[in-house]
Amino acid sequence: MKVAILAEDQFAPATAKTAIGVLRYAPYEIVAVIDSTRAGKDAADCVGVGKGVPVVASVDDAIARGATVILIGTAAAGGRIPDGYRAALARTLERGVQVWNGLHERVFADPELAAAAKRGGAKVRELREPPPDLPIGGHRARREGARVVLTVGSDAAVGKMTASLEIVAALRRIGERAEFVATGQTGIAIAGQGIAVDAVVADFIAGAAELMVCDAAERADWVVVEGQGSLTHPGFSGVTLGLLHGTAPDVMVLCHEWMRHSVKGYDDRQPLRALPEYIRIYEDAAAWRRPPGFPPARVVAVAGNTGSLNVPSGNAHEMAQKIIASIASVTGLPTADPIREGAAGADRIAGALRDGVPA
Amino acid sequence: MKVAILAEDQFAPATAKTAIGVLRYAPYEIVAVIDSTRAGKDAADCVGVGKGVPVVASVDDAIARGATVILIGTAAAGGRIPDGYRAALARTLERGVQVWNGLHERVFADPELAAAAKRGGAKVRELREPPPDLPIGGHRARREGARVVLTVGSDAAVGKMTASLEIVAALRRIGERAEFVATGQTGIAIAGQGIAVDAVVADFIAGAAELMVCDAAERADWVVVEGQGSLTHPGFSGVTLGLLHGTAPDVMVLCHEWMRHSVKGYDDRQPLRALPEYIRIYEDAAAWRRPPGFPPARVVAVAGNTGSLNVPSGNAHEMAQKIIASIASVTGLPTADPIREGAAGADRIAGALRDGVPA
Repeated sequence: MKVAILAEDQFAPATAKTAIGVLRYAPYEIVAVIDSTRAGKDAADCVGVGKGVPVVASVDDAIARGATVILIGTAAAGGRIPDGYRAALARTLERGVQVWNGLHERVFADPELAAAAKRGGAKVRELREPPPDLPIGGHRARREGARVVLTVGSDAAVGKMTASLEIVAALRRIGERAEFVATGQTGIAIAGQGIAVDAVVADFIAGAAELMVCDAAERADWVVVEGQGSLTHPGFSGVTLGLLHGTAPDVMVLCHEWMRHSVKGYDDRQPLRALPEYIRIYEDAAAWRRPPGFPPARVVAVAGNTGSLNVPSGNAHEMAQKIIASIASVTGLPTADPIREGAAGADRIAGALRDGVPA
Repeated sequence: MKVAILAEDQFAPATAKTAIGVLRYAPYEIVAVIDSTRAGKDAADCVGVGKGVPVVASVDDAIARGATVILIGTAAAGGRIPDGYRAALARTLERGVQVWNGLHERVFADPELAAAAKRGGAKVRELREPPPDLPIGGHRARREGARVVLTVGSDAAVGKMTASLEIVAALRRIGERAEFVATGQTGIAIAGQGIAVDAVVADFIAGAAELMVCDAAERADWVVVEGQGSLTHPGFSGVTLGLLHGTAPDVMVLCHEWMRHSVKGYDDRQPLRALPEYIRIYEDAAAWRRPPGFPPARVVAVAGNTGSLNVPSGNAHEMAQKIIASIASVTGLPTADPIREGAAGADRIAGALRDGVPA
C-alpha cells in the first residue's frame, strides 16, 4: 500500500491537520502530497514534517509515483467535501485508485463520484463510518488492572492525538504493554482501526468509546485514548463529555496549544479559560459518571504544544522551554512538549502517568 | 388523522413512555392502544391517562376503529424495533396504513417491512430522522429579548418533556408568547416538528439545538426546550451537554422523579446525587460555554415528579405535598409537580421563570 495525501490549496500547518498527522505517524509509505499551489516543494518545507515526500500537482502525478490510495488530508469544521476536491477525487476513482475519506460527507453521496468509482472499479474507505450495532455506554466493565489514559484539551486541534501517540511510544520504551485507541479520522487513518466518535449517532458516543477501551484493555495494560474537542467548545462539547464518560479514564493528560487564547474558528468570541480551570472542569466532569467511593480521575500532566512557536534564529527552543516551565508552574503539573522535546518530553509525561494511577 | 399506539405487551407506566406522552398531549385523535395482553381495558386503567381510549388486541382492530396511523409507543434503550412488533408492523404497512417510528432502528432497515410497505403502498414517518445539513453549534446568535428555558434532569425519563409542555401552557395562560422545542421522539410526535438530538451525528448535537432555538426565538418570547438524559448518565451525558450548550439557556428547571435513587437501567450501580449537586453541576456546565461577563444560567425551579406515588386511599395527595415541600426545602427553589398539582403547579414554575430571567 502506497498512499498519497490530497491537500489541494491547503497544505499548510493551520489547514492540513490530517495530512500532518499521517506524515508523522503512518506505518505505511507516503509517496506524495497533492497541492498544485505548492508543487515542487518538499513536504517538510510546507508543514515541518515529511522530509523527502514531494508535493505534486495532480492525482495523475501521485499515481505516477506509485500511489494506490489517495487520502483526503484536510478537514474543515462541518465535514463537507470541498468542491475544489471533487474533480481530483473523480479522477482518482476513474483510474481505479482507492480513496480514504475522513470527512462527515460520504464520497458516494455525490452521484458523480459514485459513477466515477463504478467506471474505474475503485473502492472508498470511509474512515468515519461507524460500525453497526454500537452499545449504550455504562454497561460493560473493563479488565481489572488495565489503566486507561485520556488526553483532554483546552480546545479542539491542540495536539491530543499527537500526545496520545507519543505517550504510547514512551510507555513502550519503558517496557509497558500500551495501546492507542483512535477516536478520530486521522488517528484511524494511522492506526488502521478505531471509531470516529464524532460521527456516531449521538446516543452511542459513550458506548463506542467503552467498546474500544474494553477491547483494548484485553490486549494491553495501558490504554491511551485520543481525546476529542473540549468541554468548553460551543459545538463539540457533547462529543467530549460522551467520550470522557465512555472512556472512564483513570488519569488524564491536559493538552494545550500555548498560542491559543480563544476557541478556534469562533473569531475570538469564546475566550479560553485559565489552565487550572480546565483541570477542575475535566476532573469534575469525570467524577459525575463515577459511583461514589471510586477513586477520582485526576489530570496528572500537561502536554504543552509549542508547535506554532516559530522565531528566527535559535531562540525558539529557549522560548519553548520558558513556556513549558510557565505552564508547569501555573498548573503544578509535569509539563512537556512531546514533539519539540522529543522522547524526553513524552517520557516525562509517561512517568507522571505511572506515578499518578492509583495502585 | 387518527392514530393508534402500538405498545404490545408493554402498555404500562414503566415501559410505555411515548404512549403516555402522546395520550396526554397529542393534538390529534387517539383511537386505540394495541396490546393484546391488556385488550378490553381502558387506557387510563393501564397508565393513568387516556380515559375513553380502548386497548385492542391487534392492528386490524385498531384499523377497524379508524386508525390511519400506527405509532410505535414504546422505546427500549438502544432503540431496536422489538422482534415481537415486526408482524404487527408488517400487517399495518400491508394494509396501507402509515407507521410513525421513533426508535433508532429504521423500519425500512428490515427488508420484510420494506416489502410490506411496497405491497401496501404505505408510508413510514421516521420521527428520529435528522434533517440534512445541520450546522456546527456556536455560530448563530438568537433574537435578543427571547428568553430560553431548558428542562434538565437527575436522570433520563424523569418528566422533562412533560414539564416543558406544562410550562409552555402556564406561560401562555399568563399571556406570554411561548413555544415548545421538541428534542426527542415523543415530543416530535406531539408537536409535529423538532429534531431528536440523540439521533443526529454526534458533532451536530449543539448545532441542531441551536437551529431549533434560534428559529423558535423568531416566533416566541419564551422558548422552552425539552431536555434529554442527564449530565451524570453513563450512556447519554454527551447528548445532554451538547443540548445544554446548543440551547444556551437563560434559565433551567431541574426535573426529578422522587422515587429514583439510581440511574434507570443500571441495576443500582450508578446512584443519583443529592439535588443541590445537580443544580451546581448544571450551572457549572452551562457556564463553560458562556463567554466571561455573560450572566450565568441558573436553575430557578424544580419539577418534582411524584407520578410513581400510588398509595391506596386519599393519602397520595398529602404525601406528594410533603415530598414537594421537602424538595423545595433541600434545594431552596420553588418546586411543583405540574401533573399531580395541575395548572397551579405549572403556574408556580412559570412564575419562578419570570422572576429568574435577568432583564
